[in-house]
Amino acid sequence: MNKINKEISITFPDGTIVKKPYGITGLNIAEDISSSLAKQSVAIEVNSELRDLSYAIIEDASVNIIKRSSDEALELIRHDCAHVMAEAVQLLFPGTQVTIGPAINNGFYYDFATPKPFTMEDLQKIEKQMLKIVEKDTPFIREVWKRNDAIDYFKSKGETYKAEIIEDLSKDEELSIYSQGEWLDLCKGPHLPSTKHIGTSFKLMKVAGAYWRGNEKNEMLTRIYGTCWRTDKELRKYLNMLVEAEKRDHRKIGKEMKIFTFDEEVGPGLPLWLPNGCILIEEIEKLAKETEEFSGYDRVKTPHITKGSLYEKSGHLSHYKDSMFPAMDIDGNEYYLKPMNCPHHHKIYASSPRTYKELPIRLAEYGTCYRYEKSGQLFGLMRVRSMQMNDAHIYCTEEQFKEEFLDVCKMYLKYFDIFGIEKYEMRLSLHDPDRLGEKYVDEPKLWLKTEKLVREALEVGKIKYVEIPGEAAFYGPKIDVQVWSAIGKEFTLATNQVDFAIPEKFGLSYTDNKNKSHTPLCIHRAPLGTHERFIGFLIEHFAGNFPLWLTPVQMVIIPISDKFNDYATVVYNRLKDSGIRVKMDSRNEKMGAKIRDAELNKIPIMVIIGENEVNDNTITVRRKFKGDLGSLALDDFIQQTNNEISTRSLSS
Amino acid sequence: MNKINKEISITFPDGTIVKKPYGITGLNIAEDISSSLAKQSVAIEVNSELRDLSYAIIEDASVNIIKRSSDEALELIRHDCAHVMAEAVQLLFPGTQVTIGPAINNGFYYDFATPKPFTMEDLQKIEKQMLKIVEKDTPFIREVWKRNDAIDYFKSKGETYKAEIIEDLSKDEELSIYSQGEWLDLCKGPHLPSTKHIGTSFKLMKVAGAYWRGNEKNEMLTRIYGTCWRTDKELRKYLNMLVEAEKRDHRKIGKEMKIFTFDEEVGPGLPLWLPNGCILIEEIEKLAKETEEFSGYDRVKTPHITKGSLYEKSGHLSHYKDSMFPAMDIDGNEYYLKPMNCPHHHKIYASSPRTYKELPIRLAEYGTCYRYEKSGQLFGLMRVRSMQMNDAHIYCTEEQFKEEFLDVCKMYLKYFDIFGIEKYEMRLSLHDPDRLGEKYVDEPKLWLKTEKLVREALEVGKIKYVEIPGEAAFYGPKIDVQVWSAIGKEFTLATNQVDFAIPEKFGLSYTDNKNKSHTPLCIHRAPLGTHERFIGFLIEHFAGNFPLWLTPVQMVIIPISDKFNDYATVVYNRLKDSGIRVKMDSRNEKMGAKIRDAELNKIPIMVIIGENEVNDNTITVRRKFKGDLGSLALDDFIQQTNNEISTRSLSS
Repeated sequence: MNKINKEISITFPDGTIVKKPYGITGLNIAEDISSSLAKQSVAIEVNSELRDLSYAIIEDASVNIIKRSSDEALELIRHDCAHVMAEAVQLLFPGTQVTIGPAINNGFYYDFATPKPFTMEDLQKIEKQMLKIVEKDTPFIREVWKRNDAIDYFKSKGETYKAEIIEDLSKDEELSIYSQGEWLDLCKGPHLPSTKHIGTSFKLMKVAGAYWRGNEKNEMLTRIYGTCWRTDKELRKYLNMLVEAEKRDHRKIGKEMKIFTFDEEVGPGLPLWLPNGCILIEEIEKLAKETEEFSGYDRVKTPHITKGSLYEKSGHLSHYKDSMFPAMDIDGNEYYLKPMNCPHHHKIYASSPRTYKELPIRLAEYGTCYRYEKSGQLFGLMRVRSMQMNDAHIYCTEEQFKEEFLDVCKMYLKYFDIFGIEKYEMRLSLHDPDRLGEKYVDEPKLWLKTEKLVREALEVGKIKYVEIPGEAAFYGPKIDVQVWSAIGKEFTLATNQVDFAIPEKFGLSYTDNKNKSHTPLCIHRAPLGTHERFIGFLIEHFAGNFPLWLTPVQMVIIPISDKFNDYATVVYNRLKDSGIRVKMDSRNEKMGAKIRDAELNKIPIMVIIGENEVNDNTITVRRKFKGDLGSLALDDFIQQTNNEISTRSLSS
Repeated sequence: MNKINKEISITFPDGTIVKKPYGITGLNIAEDISSSLAKQSVAIEVNSELRDLSYAIIEDASVNIIKRSSDEALELIRHDCAHVMAEAVQLLFPGTQVTIGPAINNGFYYDFATPKPFTMEDLQKIEKQMLKIVEKDTPFIREVWKRNDAIDYFKSKGETYKAEIIEDLSKDEELSIYSQGEWLDLCKGPHLPSTKHIGTSFKLMKVAGAYWRGNEKNEMLTRIYGTCWRTDKELRKYLNMLVEAEKRDHRKIGKEMKIFTFDEEVGPGLPLWLPNGCILIEEIEKLAKETEEFSGYDRVKTPHITKGSLYEKSGHLSHYKDSMFPAMDIDGNEYYLKPMNCPHHHKIYASSPRTYKELPIRLAEYGTCYRYEKSGQLFGLMRVRSMQMNDAHIYCTEEQFKEEFLDVCKMYLKYFDIFGIEKYEMRLSLHDPDRLGEKYVDEPKLWLKTEKLVREALEVGKIKYVEIPGEAAFYGPKIDVQVWSAIGKEFTLATNQVDFAIPEKFGLSYTDNKNKSHTPLCIHRAPLGTHERFIGFLIEHFAGNFPLWLTPVQMVIIPISDKFNDYATVVYNRLKDSGIRVKMDSRNEKMGAKIRDAELNKIPIMVIIGENEVNDNTITVRRKFKGDLGSLALDDFIQQTNNEISTRSLSS
């Protein structure tokens, strides 16, 4: 209908607007700017939607050309790599059916229906074949097929899974097929212009089983995981991180350092904390209690079981029952293990009439919650069934909300600083207006108001955040906090939620200065997450070399021979009395062996006692990562050490 | 067969032996000494068995004449009082059947089957009737009846319960009937010589329901409780104690001081600890942790649920299931809430191979356990379903046992001292050789050996104790600790058990210096009992006026008027920064009202700020129970206060 000569307005990210011919592609636009840009480009964002570089633009649009070197390109590269892997697999293993293959963090996977699982040797062959396909530089071509044609095509190829996927798609949906040479796949796209843009910085990592559509009642498929990056340098960095992460595996170090154990007769996902782990717990709780005390929190303590009626009121039984343990019948009532502490804290709020003068009320509890996870999902301390949570609920007026919310965010930053967490991300999860009354409480105005309050708090506090639509909790917006360990491994640690719905359900109220009743807002917060996950993270973050204040055994005294045991005991007692966690190694072993054992046990400080030390009334200190610190007066050493401990210094 | 002229040897408590005629009675012996002794005597111990004063002695015997004023007489007086009450009831309320009526602590009760429950007015009538019976001075006469005669007699009187009791008695048992005048009852005895010896220092206290034979499936009977003493002075003291105890009821003070609350929707017996209660918990745990740290305990932390198989191994499911919550089915396994922490600690012991060098290993956890109590049994904090226990398990060699056990006992004494518990009793519960293999692990030699070790430990430590046969735990002897509050109310607080059986069941072992494997002994101990019961006790013991270190709010600052708020805030911040739990009362209220509120809230210290204080840069301190302490320099006051707190001084 539009004439071919019609012009459209193209707006660039810097605001420049130019007229371009109707139907112009991203590649044309890039070429118009420079041929080098055209070579570097792999896709284009048109009105915030990522498109193929060959996509014809037929209306006024804002555009953003995506270069291969940009972060946005990474997902495309990974996704294309998955397609190329699928082609290679079907070339090498005829009879294998494809199913789905998305890009994921650090790479991609593809699930295949295959008569026998792949071996690590198979992966090498597949990788070689992928390199050949990339080298051929075949273009990715997009076509729109008719539904029945597509079903017939895949069925004729024996691809029953793919045919089933298409059959299940909505009939209104446009069905796009991307091909690279003769191989093709159902795919929403977009894709890179051709296979060569994928590059060669990829590696197939492992084979795993995966149920068709994630349902354990379906057939088991074979999943191949690959990692894929823009450059070999990125790939190398990632592979090195994995090697380092394996060394730091909290399950391995947790066992070596006797931090925790699991027992088959106690049950999976239920850690037993050994004395060293308990020291970590106590130190972290001490930090939390001090911090919360300083910030005006009150502590409470609530039982681990509760009548089902409480969880009906809170909505847990209708929204969260799958993650709860089954009920126990007591005197004709159903009781549940608590999966969260909120309803109990609400009950404590409700135990007295409240006035505005008392608000904000901040109730804190390091409460142990129980959540059912499938046994296959359990993983060390990272996914468990019992969890001790750095929980608190803040009840406040709307006027108090911003300051309270910001204070919570600042508490996170304080903790990051204490634990040397340098990289983190605050993800503000918002509601989806289309799912009000279904996934989200049907209070459109309250949603907008609360989200605005949260944004304002973050902006006042100059706290960086990203917005994620459609990820809010049922009852209000939340901030999920991701952190990266010292070696760049990502962890989900903590959540910070606003709740404008549940306090009303619980009939919580306060009276204002005119004796009028209002419902408070509630902030759910747990900056240190759970002991389980946080200590798991800390083990990997510090590779077990915790800062001095946190480490289970802070120092060991090593007398060079029996002759010095008396003086060593005097030193030991002085150190112990000053509150230091010290051990004595008076075994009949060589010095070298004792030092090696201390290092293996990751004890940061060794206090060596020999003839000189006895004569000079001193000690000699050896510090991990710092070597020999020479001879010191005991009093000075105690003062320095206690200063390092009490300030929770990071140097370890 | 013996001639009436035969003489027997009677040995007195002082060792004197005299010859007396065969068949002599206690009364004769007393009369032989003096007529005043005869008048004071009420019973006699013959070869350690308590007998009627009229009992004829027919063999050589050690005797001890029991005077009415002695402690041993008290139970007799109470028991006789029960008989007299039963007679009075049947006189006044014909058609009432008697069942059983023992002496108990502080008095007695008797259960009646009666068409309608007694009122408080009825009790007054009964009391009057009892006084008449006592006044008549009717002798108590013992007769031995034939079984069938007794059954026929009681049936003919319409006393079906009594007849049922007799029918259930073993046929070998001698059936003694005691009468006072026309009224008689089946009774083992012994009794006082006559009703007048009961005296008049008794009072009927209350009426309660009680199931026949304690079984809720049986008929409900009516129980009358009475208290009974040797003198009016004792009775008055007891009644005053009750009045005082009611004022100190922990449920009442716990509510007023906002220490804990219960909530119908959470469930009965599951306390919610409010901020003030949580401060008590934290302070008590701090004390326990410090004490245990000093005594070489390691802390551990274990989950609240566990697979049933663990409790099968530990014997809980076969011996303790009625006190456990019902199972939850998880992935086809039964999981239980833990009723005790021991199996988990055993698992931690077993998580590493152990050598003699590591022993003793002392694992401590303030673990929360869950026990099912019938809802009718629940009582404030004293009988609950969730309990936080000052638990620890000590694993040691036989050589180490005595010292370890004694150290535990000394820890009890240390705590008694800190909490001002002046009266206590250590009850050493021993096994019953007749019930080996049934109520007690069938290890006769181990029982004797361990009981000997415990006795020796107590004697070395010069710790007073009483022995109670047949009250040991299944797996070893134990010490139950009874304490009396400041007003003389008795509480059962804590237990200390030796376990020579379970460690073997769990396969716990250590290797000795010759690499030979042994099973350690285990001491279960919980000197501070559970938070629930201990805090309940402390509330009543201190009537809520806790020592300064323990009390939730240590002081309140009261500015005399708004003008002094600035200086008051400076003082507040200084106090708070020094770690004192301080509140500010800057309400627009009169001084008198603020002082009254502070007193009502049992805040021990008031810091008054007015013009003089601002001008002189001082504070004025008012202390509960001590009055006005005058003007003080703030620094001196902080130092004194922190000294009082850190030494956990008792003066409050």
